[in-house]
Amino acid sequence: MGNQQVFASIITIGDELLIGQTIDTNSAWIAQELNKIGIWVHRRVAVGDVWEDIVKSLNEEMHLSEVILITGGLGPTADDITKPLLCQYFGGKLVVNEEALANVKNIFENILKRPLLERNLKQAEVPDVCKVLQNKRGTAPGMWFEKEGKIFVSMPGVPHEMKGMMSQSVLPALKDIFKMPPIIHRTLLTAGIGESFLAERISDFEAQLPSNIKLAYLPNYGMVKLRLSARGRSEKLLAELEAEFDMLKSKVSDVLVVDEDLSMQQVIGRILNQKNKTLGIAESCTGGYISHLITSVPGSSSYFKGSVTSYANEVKEDVLHVDPQVIQAYGAVSRETASQMVRGTLRVLKTDYALVTTGIMGPHGGTAEKPTGTVWVGVGSADKTETHHFLFRFDRQRNMELTGTHGLNVLRKFILHDDGG
Amino acid sequence: MGNQQVFASIITIGDELLIGQTIDTNSAWIAQELNKIGIWVHRRVAVGDVWEDIVKSLNEEMHLSEVILITGGLGPTADDITKPLLCQYFGGKLVVNEEALANVKNIFENILKRPLLERNLKQAEVPDVCKVLQNKRGTAPGMWFEKEGKIFVSMPGVPHEMKGMMSQSVLPALKDIFKMPPIIHRTLLTAGIGESFLAERISDFEAQLPSNIKLAYLPNYGMVKLRLSARGRSEKLLAELEAEFDMLKSKVSDVLVVDEDLSMQQVIGRILNQKNKTLGIAESCTGGYISHLITSVPGSSSYFKGSVTSYANEVKEDVLHVDPQVIQAYGAVSRETASQMVRGTLRVLKTDYALVTTGIMGPHGGTAEKPTGTVWVGVGSADKTETHHFLFRFDRQRNMELTGTHGLNVLRKFILHDDGG
Repeated sequence: MGNQQVFASIITIGDELLIGQTIDTNSAWIAQELNKIGIWVHRRVAVGDVWEDIVKSLNEEMHLSEVILITGGLGPTADDITKPLLCQYFGGKLVVNEEALANVKNIFENILKRPLLERNLKQAEVPDVCKVLQNKRGTAPGMWFEKEGKIFVSMPGVPHEMKGMMSQSVLPALKDIFKMPPIIHRTLLTAGIGESFLAERISDFEAQLPSNIKLAYLPNYGMVKLRLSARGRSEKLLAELEAEFDMLKSKVSDVLVVDEDLSMQQVIGRILNQKNKTLGIAESCTGGYISHLITSVPGSSSYFKGSVTSYANEVKEDVLHVDPQVIQAYGAVSRETASQMVRGTLRVLKTDYALVTTGIMGPHGGTAEKPTGTVWVGVGSADKTETHHFLFRFDRQRNMELTGTHGLNVLRKFILHDDGG
Repeated sequence: MGNQQVFASIITIGDELLIGQTIDTNSAWIAQELNKIGIWVHRRVAVGDVWEDIVKSLNEEMHLSEVILITGGLGPTADDITKPLLCQYFGGKLVVNEEALANVKNIFENILKRPLLERNLKQAEVPDVCKVLQNKRGTAPGMWFEKEGKIFVSMPGVPHEMKGMMSQSVLPALKDIFKMPPIIHRTLLTAGIGESFLAERISDFEAQLPSNIKLAYLPNYGMVKLRLSARGRSEKLLAELEAEFDMLKSKVSDVLVVDEDLSMQQVIGRILNQKNKTLGIAESCTGGYISHLITSVPGSSSYFKGSVTSYANEVKEDVLHVDPQVIQAYGAVSRETASQMVRGTLRVLKTDYALVTTGIMGPHGGTAEKPTGTVWVGVGSADKTETHHFLFRFDRQRNMELTGTHGLNVLRKFILHDDGG
């Protein structure tokens, strides 16, 4: 096929998406992967397990996009109507696919070690008008249909099954068919500046951008990602994008975390690995959230030794050796307690750096003097301790997230400016 | 208005949703809240910051639904075109709203303590054909339009701003206009049984359900929620729903976690509060994730004392007093190490119960003997220690989530069956 823009639509099927019990994480992943092979997502639509709503969406999206990716509705329960619907929509009849059947049997006999049920056997049935996409991570096969020059792919809604099928079958096939020039991105991460201040600061830059390079703001948990995008692979375009990206970087140098599409915790891991240093954490108000972020990064065991969630004052005293009189005099949420938590963490976990948090996340526990959202972050090394005060004003979950972001940024700056003395 | 079904559509606007940088969590929350007042979400559509795509979606959804809720695209940056578009679509012109202006000024002067920029002042402009919804949590006001008997509401995409506006203005107004009988739900949570086995087990129950009561399966992280729904508020319907729910409960009694719409960590918190007991955790492979789940529940400080993330063996030995020879002989991922971690956690954190995890989450670290996905969970009290072996077979993130779910379920059963001796 030619070189014009290829559009995709994503249709997600399932009542659970419309009653708010399930958050759709599949669509974001699919969009990212399609972008990498030069396909742009035009629309995403979520519909319930309702025959006419699904048919309507198929009809609508096929007029908008060349590729229609469908997830969900393929499970073994009675509310899953997608397969018979697609079978009728594309004019086929259901037949058993031997390879899919062998897969279902294998999963039940060798992995789940449970008896195979009639309804599981039905999962091996597919319309005889589709190309079957084998599911190496589950029982429901995927289905590839073509109609009036448009491609329709139906996949399971279970994220790791869908991802396996996309990576192994769908993306390679789409790449082969469309041969699109890729969409190239250059992304940087800023922290400590709001979206509108950032926009004001780079408004001249934005105004002079050539029309073939697009700028996007991606705010997230107190950080903002800025991304430049262009389509193509020519040397000239790459050089042009690189020059614009350099200019953008110079405009935000004081708030720049990293000039790649990385998370704050990935950046910290990279710096620690480079310096060959270790990290320990003590969390009071964040309750394990920061450790969870750090350990979400594969390979984090090379620099992260561990953490103490000292929710109770007793744990601050017994495990982190915070002086009970300090807690008594200044409170658990104080500069003094944060500072002692830093020293205790370094001593107990025997690490080069320590990050600690103590604060009031809400909805309960705030006072006039220390309202909900009051946070002390502490950071330190063998010969230095720093404390920082924050006041957030949101709900519990968001206060935890913001404490995590700001705490990690304090840590990052501390490590970067530490001379290793 | 009458008593027929009221449908809503949700339109989310923003390129970030189509390139996969942002996961849409707003829609699920909105759907839940609409459900409570008897409004059913018919479709959700995500479109980019593209004028004709937004207009097309407005046109399409107004033919499907009585209420069209629009989020996103109201920020202060140049890629946000929603407000001028809506102004033109509904035939108005932009005027300064004094109350919104006072709000913007107040936020900058008293909360952010930063100079106000020209582009922030623009946020106080609204079309003169809408009812303005004040934003108490941010600078962008919401807008309520009516056209051809349909209601269109535009709100900011920032979750806590949208939620505030929905709760304070939109939901009360919709409730007042439509006066719908509520959708009533009865939900239970199961753990330890797959969706298809559950479906097989309750297929007779499902077949006999009256047509006015719907059953939904909501699988999530190794657990399945089952929900019965009906519309109305009559005594007869409530009694009917209750009787069906009792029957459903009896079918799943052995895998039932709770007969309310609660999370596993909420259930554990409730049991601990009832028993007046405390919990401590030691996490190796889950790296803080389980502590994060536990502390996400407001009020968890009354039963959760703290945790140790013992990522490095040194921390297992130094802080949790695991015998180095045990780690040497059996490995950090072993029944013996898990068992010693339980004893150490009880001793160091001085709690009534302890939950510990140690395992290999991937992608690296697996061996032939202990493949990626190998997990030991330990649980204990003063006079008893239990260990459980699991083998998951997914990616790092999912293995962490499944370890969290199964670990918490092991803990829940242990506490329930503990006689407090």
